[in-house]
Amino acid sequence: MSQYQAPLRDMRFNIEEVFDFTSHYASFSQGREASPDIVTAVLESAAEFAQEVLAPLDAVGDKIGCTWHDGEVTTPPGFKEAYAQYIANGWTTLAMPTELDGQGLPASLAGFCMEIMCSANHAWTMYPGLSMGGIQTIAAHADDDLKRRYLPNLIAGRWSATMCLTEAHCGSDLGLLRTRATPTADGSYRISGSKIFISSGEHDLTDNIVHIVLARLPDAPPGIKGISLFLVPKFMVDEKGQRGARNTVRCGSIEHKMGIHGNSTCVINFDEATGYLISPPHKGMSCMFTFINESRMGVAQQALAQIEVSHQTALRYAHDRVQFRGSVRSNPEAAADPIIVHPDIRRMLLTQRAFAEGGRALSYFLAMQTDRERYSDDAQVRETAEALLSLLTPVAKGFLSEVSVEATSYGVQVLGGHGYVREWGQEQHFRDARITSIYEGTSGIQGLDLLGRKILGSRGKALEPFLLLVGGFCQQHPDGPYTAQLQKLVQQWTALTGELGVKALQNPDEINAAAYDYLMFSGYTVMAWTWAQAALVADTALQNNPSEKDAAFYRNKLVTARFYFERLLPRTLALASSMRAGVATLPEFDPLD
Amino acid sequence: MSQYQAPLRDMRFNIEEVFDFTSHYASFSQGREASPDIVTAVLESAAEFAQEVLAPLDAVGDKIGCTWHDGEVTTPPGFKEAYAQYIANGWTTLAMPTELDGQGLPASLAGFCMEIMCSANHAWTMYPGLSMGGIQTIAAHADDDLKRRYLPNLIAGRWSATMCLTEAHCGSDLGLLRTRATPTADGSYRISGSKIFISSGEHDLTDNIVHIVLARLPDAPPGIKGISLFLVPKFMVDEKGQRGARNTVRCGSIEHKMGIHGNSTCVINFDEATGYLISPPHKGMSCMFTFINESRMGVAQQALAQIEVSHQTALRYAHDRVQFRGSVRSNPEAAADPIIVHPDIRRMLLTQRAFAEGGRALSYFLAMQTDRERYSDDAQVRETAEALLSLLTPVAKGFLSEVSVEATSYGVQVLGGHGYVREWGQEQHFRDARITSIYEGTSGIQGLDLLGRKILGSRGKALEPFLLLVGGFCQQHPDGPYTAQLQKLVQQWTALTGELGVKALQNPDEINAAAYDYLMFSGYTVMAWTWAQAALVADTALQNNPSEKDAAFYRNKLVTARFYFERLLPRTLALASSMRAGVATLPEFDPLD
Repeated sequence: MSQYQAPLRDMRFNIEEVFDFTSHYASFSQGREASPDIVTAVLESAAEFAQEVLAPLDAVGDKIGCTWHDGEVTTPPGFKEAYAQYIANGWTTLAMPTELDGQGLPASLAGFCMEIMCSANHAWTMYPGLSMGGIQTIAAHADDDLKRRYLPNLIAGRWSATMCLTEAHCGSDLGLLRTRATPTADGSYRISGSKIFISSGEHDLTDNIVHIVLARLPDAPPGIKGISLFLVPKFMVDEKGQRGARNTVRCGSIEHKMGIHGNSTCVINFDEATGYLISPPHKGMSCMFTFINESRMGVAQQALAQIEVSHQTALRYAHDRVQFRGSVRSNPEAAADPIIVHPDIRRMLLTQRAFAEGGRALSYFLAMQTDRERYSDDAQVRETAEALLSLLTPVAKGFLSEVSVEATSYGVQVLGGHGYVREWGQEQHFRDARITSIYEGTSGIQGLDLLGRKILGSRGKALEPFLLLVGGFCQQHPDGPYTAQLQKLVQQWTALTGELGVKALQNPDEINAAAYDYLMFSGYTVMAWTWAQAALVADTALQNNPSEKDAAFYRNKLVTARFYFERLLPRTLALASSMRAGVATLPEFDPLD
Repeated sequence: MSQYQAPLRDMRFNIEEVFDFTSHYASFSQGREASPDIVTAVLESAAEFAQEVLAPLDAVGDKIGCTWHDGEVTTPPGFKEAYAQYIANGWTTLAMPTELDGQGLPASLAGFCMEIMCSANHAWTMYPGLSMGGIQTIAAHADDDLKRRYLPNLIAGRWSATMCLTEAHCGSDLGLLRTRATPTADGSYRISGSKIFISSGEHDLTDNIVHIVLARLPDAPPGIKGISLFLVPKFMVDEKGQRGARNTVRCGSIEHKMGIHGNSTCVINFDEATGYLISPPHKGMSCMFTFINESRMGVAQQALAQIEVSHQTALRYAHDRVQFRGSVRSNPEAAADPIIVHPDIRRMLLTQRAFAEGGRALSYFLAMQTDRERYSDDAQVRETAEALLSLLTPVAKGFLSEVSVEATSYGVQVLGGHGYVREWGQEQHFRDARITSIYEGTSGIQGLDLLGRKILGSRGKALEPFLLLVGGFCQQHPDGPYTAQLQKLVQQWTALTGELGVKALQNPDEINAAAYDYLMFSGYTVMAWTWAQAALVADTALQNNPSEKDAAFYRNKLVTARFYFERLLPRTLALASSMRAGVATLPEFDPLD
C-alpha cells in the first residue's frame, strides 16, 4: 500500500531556492498574506490531510468505485466524510478573494496543495479540483446576479461544478456538438441534449452540482463558432442563493473505466433543463477556455503527482527488496543485496524522479505565471504571463501526461510481479495516470494547439517570451552546469520550428504529421530548462556549506539532472529525426480486407 | 467489443513469401504432413475457433475473473466449455509426435495457432500454453516411467501443467529459493514450500494439474547451483497413468491483478507433497530452461498478439469515427471526416502495425529455428538454430513486451475516452499486455541475459550466426529497399557491442547500466532486418502484376516498412547515446529523508 509522503523538501526547493516565491508573493496584494511561514504551514497541513485522510481512501476508491442507482451516484466509502473534512478545514476558500469570503491566499499555493492531494488520491481530488475551474469561469463570465446566487456556495464547497463538453459523437471536435438551448420568456434557456464523460457529473458529496454546459442557440452558425456557454444547476437556485426544486438534469449512467474509479464519469442528460447563458451568444468556446486552460494545468499536475507517488513506492521497495548481489555488497550478512544496488533499477527510479521533479518545477513556474496573470497590477507583466501560459500549458499537459505512462509503468516494473498485483498500489497509479493524456484534450490535440495554432499560427512569435527567458538564463549563467547543452538544444528547437513552418506552407498536413513529436521535443526542451536551473541552484548551494541532510538533497538533484541530460534528453535526437521524415511517411493506406 | 479477425493474409505472407516454410517443412520428417493445404486448413480452423469461441469470452473473463473458494479455483463462465471444445478438436495433440498419439505436425504451426488464440483471449490461452512447455520439459528430462504415466493425459489435454519457480522472497533471483525436497524410501520426494505467482496453478479445466517445481535437496549447495527440478501432481497418478488420491498441494489464494483476470495466478503450497526428481540432482536450472525458453517465446507471441488485436480495433474505429476535417474531404456529405484522414492518427496506427507485423515476422523466423533445433537430422543445422534461438529469444521477449505497452497504449489513445472505458476492450489489451514485460523474466533480466551472459559472455561469438544471416541478406540484395540502412545499423550495433565489452572489463556494472538500452537497440535492429526482408518481398511482388487485393497488401507493407525505418528506427540514436553515457550516470544516490 502507498505510504505517500508529500515531497515538502522539493517543494521548498522550488518555492524558496529556484523561483523565489517569497519576492513573487510580496509583489501583489493577494500574495501579501503568503509569508514563508504561512506557506509552510499550509503545505504541511495539506500534507497531513492528504497522507492521513485521502491516501488511505485511494485503494478503496479503486476497488469499490462509484455506484449508480436510478440517477444517483454513491461515491466510495469514506469519500463523503473526507470531503466534509476538506470543506470544514477551509481548503476550498484558500485562494478565494476575501471579498468573496475567501482566505485571500494566492492561486499558486492552492495549486501546490492540489498536487499533494492528487498524489494521495487522484480520483477524489478531481471533485474539488473541477469546482475551482467552474468558479473561475463563473467569476470571469457570468453576470452579477448569477455570481451572487452561485459563487458563495461553490466557494464554500457546499456545491460543486462540472464541465459538460463531450457528446457521444463529438470529443475533440466540439464543432459537431448538438445540445440545444432555447430561450424562454424569463431570460433563461431550456437545455436539451446528452453529454458523456462528465467527470464528477453526479455524486453525493455536495448539496448541488452546477454544470457548465456548451450548447447551441437556435440561430447559431454551424461549427465551433456557434457554441454558447450555459450554467445549468442540478437543483434550481432562488434569488437568495437557496437551493430549490430539482432541475431536469439526470445522470443516465456511469462509465466502467480503466482507472480513477473513485471519480464518477457520467452520462448527463438535459431534458429541457433550465439554464442561464454565461457567454456572449455564440462566443462560448473562448469563455470555456477559462475552464479548459485551468483544467489542463490541473491535468499536468495530476500526471506529475502520479509519477511522484509511484516513485516513492518504487524507491521504498528498491531499498527493502533483496535480490542478487551488487558489485559492492551493501548487505554482506544476507544472501542478496537490496535491488537499488543494481544500476538498471536506478535507471528506472531516476527516470521517474527526473520527470516528477522536472515536472514539479515546470508546474511551479506556470503557477507563478497564473498568479501574475490574475493578480498583477502591471499590464505588461500580465501580458507576458499570459503568453507564457498560452505556450506552455499544452507542453505541460501533453508532455507530462505522456511521460506519466512511462514513469508509472516503471513504478510497476521495479516491483516486478508485485507491481502487477493490487496490493502495492503501483498498478493503480499506472491505470489512473493513463487518463491524463486523454481527457482535457488528447496529446494529439495538445500538439496541434502548440505547433499549429500557437507557434506557427503566430509565425513563431508565441515562442518569444520563453526564448527570452532561456536566453536570459544562459547569458546570466554562462558557466552553469548545463547552460551549453541548454543553449544548443534551444537552437535545435527553433531551427526545427522554422523548418516545419516552411514545410507547412507547402502542405498543411505537415503540421499534423509533426505535432506529436514536436510536442514531446518541446517538453524535453522546456524540462531541460527547469533541470538546468535546478542543477545551478543545487551546485551553488553545495558550495555554501549546507547541512548534511541538505547536501544529500542537492547531490541527488545533481545526479538526477545529469541523468536527465545524458540519458533522457537524447530522445530529442529520435524525435527530431522522426518529425523531419514528415507527412510522406504517413500516407493514406489501403484498408486491409 | 473486439471483432478480432486472424491476420491470415499476413501469416501467409510470412509462411509462403518471406520464409518459405513449404521447403522448410519438406526438409524434416515431422514437417512432411504440413503441406500448404494442411497449413492453411489448420490456420483457418484456429481462426474460426479463436474468433467464434475464445474472443467472446475475453471481456467476460476480464470482468468476472477467476474466483477462489477453499483451495478450488473457478474459471470465468465459458472457459471450461471452450477448453473442452479445444481438446475435443485435437488442438493439444497438433504438434505432438505420432508415437505419442499426436498428429505429427511441426511445432511452428502450433505456435502460429497460439498467436491467433492469444489475440482472441490471452488469459484463456495461457492454460493450454503452459502445458506445452510442461510436456516438452517432461519429454526432455523425466525418466521413461514418468513419461509413460504423465505424458498421454497431458498431451490429450485432460491434464495441464504449470511452472513453479517464484517464491515470495525470490523472483528474478532464483538462487534464493527455499522450497525443500526430502528423499523417501520409495525413490520419491517430499516437497515443502510455498510458491507464488503460479499462472494456471489451480483451475477447473482439467482433471489433474502437473506442477514442474524447483526445490532444494537436503545436500544442495547454496545458490542457483543447488536447485533441482521435480514433478509434483495435484492428484497422485498410478502405474497405469490413472488419477488417484489428492496430493498435499493446495492453492492458498489467487492474486488480484491489473489484467489477465481470466487466468488464475496462484499461491501454491506444498506440504510434504509427493514429487519426483526429473533433473539430475542440483542441475534443475538448466533443465528448467527448456520450459523457460519455450515460455519466453510464448510471451513474445502474446505481446505481438495483443498489439495485433488492439490495432484491429483502433483501425476499425479510425475508419468509423468522424471528427474534424482532413485536408482532403473524404466524407464531403457529412460534417467531418473519419479520423484516419489525420496523419497523427495514422502515426499511432502505423506504430502498432509496424510492431505487430515486424514482431510476427520475428516470431515466425524463431519458430522455424525451433523446428530445426527439434527436428533436423543435421547436427550443424540444429546447432545454428539453437545459437540463433539463444541469442534472439531474450530480444524477442524483451523487446516485443516493451513495445506492446506503447502499442496497446496507442490502441487506447486512438479511441480517446472511448479507449479508457471497458466497452471497446482497448483498455483490457493495455492491461493484459502489461504483464508480458514482467513474467518469465523482466526486461531487465532479458537485457542482462542478452548482453551479459550471451554476448559479452561469449566475447561476441553469440552474435555471429545472426550477423552471418544479415550479411548474407545484404550481399544477396545490395539494392534492396532498406539494405543500406540495415547494413549501417548492424555496424553501429556491433561497434556499440565492442565498446560495451571494453568498458565492462573495467567495470562490470557497465553491463547492468547498459543492458536495457542495449536490449531495445538490439530489438530495433533485429526488427529492421525483418522489415527489410518484408519490404524486399513486397517490392518484388508488386512488380509481378499482383491482384488488386494483393497489391493493396504489398503497398501497405511498403508504407509500414518506410514508417518503421524513418519514424521508429531513429530511436536507436537515443538508445545509443543513453547507453554510452554509462554507469557514471547511474550512481548510488542518497536516500531521501
